This record gives sequence, C-alpha cells and structure tokens, in this order.
Amino acid sequence: MLTLYDDPISGNGYKVRLALAQLGIRYRLVELDILRGETRTAAFLAKNPNGKIPMLEFDDGRCLSESNAILYYLAQGTPLWPADRYDQADALRWMFFEQYSHEPYVAVARFMFHQPTPPDPAALAGKHKRGYAALDVMEGHLGRQPYFAAGRYTVADIALYAYTHVADEGRFDLAAYRNIRAWLERVRAQPGHVAMGAKP
Amino acid sequence: MLTLYDDPISGNGYKVRLALAQLGIRYRLVELDILRGETRTAAFLAKNPNGKIPMLEFDDGRCLSESNAILYYLAQGTPLWPADRYDQADALRWMFFEQYSHEPYVAVARFMFHQPTPPDPAALAGKHKRGYAALDVMEGHLGRQPYFAAGRYTVADIALYAYTHVADEGRFDLAAYRNIRAWLERVRAQPGHVAMGAKP
Repeated sequence: MLTLYDDPISGNGYKVRLALAQLGIRYRLVELDILRGETRTAAFLAKNPNGKIPMLEFDDGRCLSESNAILYYLAQGTPLWPADRYDQADALRWMFFEQYSHEPYVAVARFMFHQPTPPDPAALAGKHKRGYAALDVMEGHLGRQPYFAAGRYTVADIALYAYTHVADEGRFDLAAYRNIRAWLERVRAQPGHVAMGAKP
Repeated sequence: MLTLYDDPISGNGYKVRLALAQLGIRYRLVELDILRGETRTAAFLAKNPNGKIPMLEFDDGRCLSESNAILYYLAQGTPLWPADRYDQADALRWMFFEQYSHEPYVAVARFMFHQPTPPDPAALAGKHKRGYAALDVMEGHLGRQPYFAAGRYTVADIALYAYTHVADEGRFDLAAYRNIRAWLERVRAQPGHVAMGAKP
C-alpha cells in the first residue's frame, strides 16, 4: 500500500489526497507538522533530502516527492491525464506555472497568516501583486476554456485548485474573478471530490 | 517547422536549445530581449499570456510555454525521456525541484549581476542561502547516482544543468561540490552537446 507523508495545512499535500480519492486508491497517511520541524528530521531527510511534504513512499521503499510529480505518477492511464502528447505537455505547462508563478505568492500569502505573528505589510503586498498577476492569467484562460488542459478536468486543474480555492485565507479577493469562481465550482462538482484535510 | 521564442540570456531557453540540438530537430529562432520588455508586448502576450520565454510555436499556431513542459514534449519517444512510469515521475520530480527550489535562487542571483546596478547584499545573501541548499541536495544525490533520474542522461539533467553550469555568474562557488562538478563534465560530454547561446 502507498504511504503519503503530509501536513494537513498543505495545499500541495491536498492535491495528492484529492487525486488519490478521485482515483479510488487506498493509502496510509503519516501526518507531519512542518512548523514543528518534523520534515527536517534525519529520518525524513533520508527519504526526501529536500525536506518537504507531500511525499509518497512505495512498499519497496522507493520515494517520490514534489506534489505535481506525484500527480503525474498517479494519473497515468486514468482520465486525469490527457492522451495526446501536446495536451500532456500543456497540462504540465500549467503545473509548472502553478509552482513557479502561483504557489510562491498565493500559497505563501496564506502561509503568512498561519504564523504566530501578523505578516509584514510590504512582504504581503509583494505576494499580492504577483499572486494577482497569476490569477489574471488564469482568469483570461478560463474565459476561453472550461478547464486548464485538454478541454477537460485533469491533474492540471487539481494542481491549480489546491491553493486557489483557499486564496481568501491569504486575503486575496476573488470577487472580480468570475471565470475562476465558476471553475472552482466545476472542480468541486467532479465525482469523488473531497475537501482539504480529507483522510484516506 | 517549430519556432522558438527565446532570449539568449535565459538558462530556461538554453534548456530547449540544448534538447533541440541533441534531438536533431530543426527550428526557427526568434530572439526577444526580456530587459527591453519584448515579452510584454500585446503580440507576444497573445501567444503566452504569462509573458515569458522560452515559448515554442507550432505550424498550426498552437503555443507551448514553460521550459520544462517543452522539454517533456520534445523528449517523448526519445532516449531523453525514461520508459518506466516511476522513472518518468522521478525525472519530473527533479524538474519541479529545479523550478521551485533551484531556479528562483541560482538563476535569480545570476540575473542580479546582469542588471545595470550591483545587487543588494541582503537580497543576494538570501538567494545564496537557498541556492546553496538546492546545490547541497544535488550534491548528495550525485554521490549516489551518476544522473538525476533513471540512472542515465535525461531531460532532468538538461533542466538542472542550464543554470548550475553558470552558477558562478551569480557568485556561487562550486569548489566544494565535487559531485556536481563531475556531473557537469558528464553532461558536457554527451553527444550533440551545445553551449549556451547556440543557434539552430
């Protein structure tokens, strides 16, 4: 059975839990507390030298980290992964966009509000500026297409849903983002959808 | 014929040029100057709303952005992409590591030295701290394996080579990174290798 190492606060971890639920894959869950340093222990670093969750461990001891690489692995041969080569690359294009242009701003602004002290206003403003830029790109795309790649629900949607649906926790206001709000509803309506914090 | 939009200063663009050269794929090159705002024109934003190079354009007008998604596309069905599902996901794991934990520090430190004014020391120190953390993860891995995924040269190596081989331009000192330096030599020795700035 697969073992998922995760922290329930993590949107990156939620991506994996959502995919596992929608694919009907049973797994064992090991919860770690990032803020208490539980991903920086020698035992965990031996499994993932980059010291990050989520991480998937296989029965033979092999490990796989990086949320979007785990999504790729889980989705192979399922409807969550496009069949066409261009569509596959386009799904990955949005998953790389998510990690480079979206998560460092939308997720990190949220993370600032989960700290013991309030965020530094200038640092938060910087996250908002670039986070809104990412949301603008998404809003434009969703005005032309119902999902991010291949014209249907794929792991690219899961990757972008994870932190977008809790953007308000980082004080992003989605009121003006009509297309994003409609897409969030379409994602929530997918069969087998589970909320953040779902257990196996 | 494929058209690549790129800026010769970009390591992300170099990844694509290197893969195209090693795969023997002919292409047309359109060079844009990031610093002069040539990726923020209306014409370019119509092709890539995220306003970034590299971007690949197909004869039918379809476009593909994000360097590592382009590498995925080009490598399908070639020796640069692993055959096994776990190895494929593991290659992507290193490519997501590159975009999240390496490029924002190793590439951005270099970029600071390409600006008209010298970098702010505190900002540079922050880039060095996290950049060295990424290099430490790579150094440990390369003490156990000759390449990043599947035990052989793949697009994961191309992705990580692009900015690591010019890390000195951001004042990173690789003297203590013996495994990385040996791996850089192995990458340079691959058939069809071309240097940064290579033209079609």
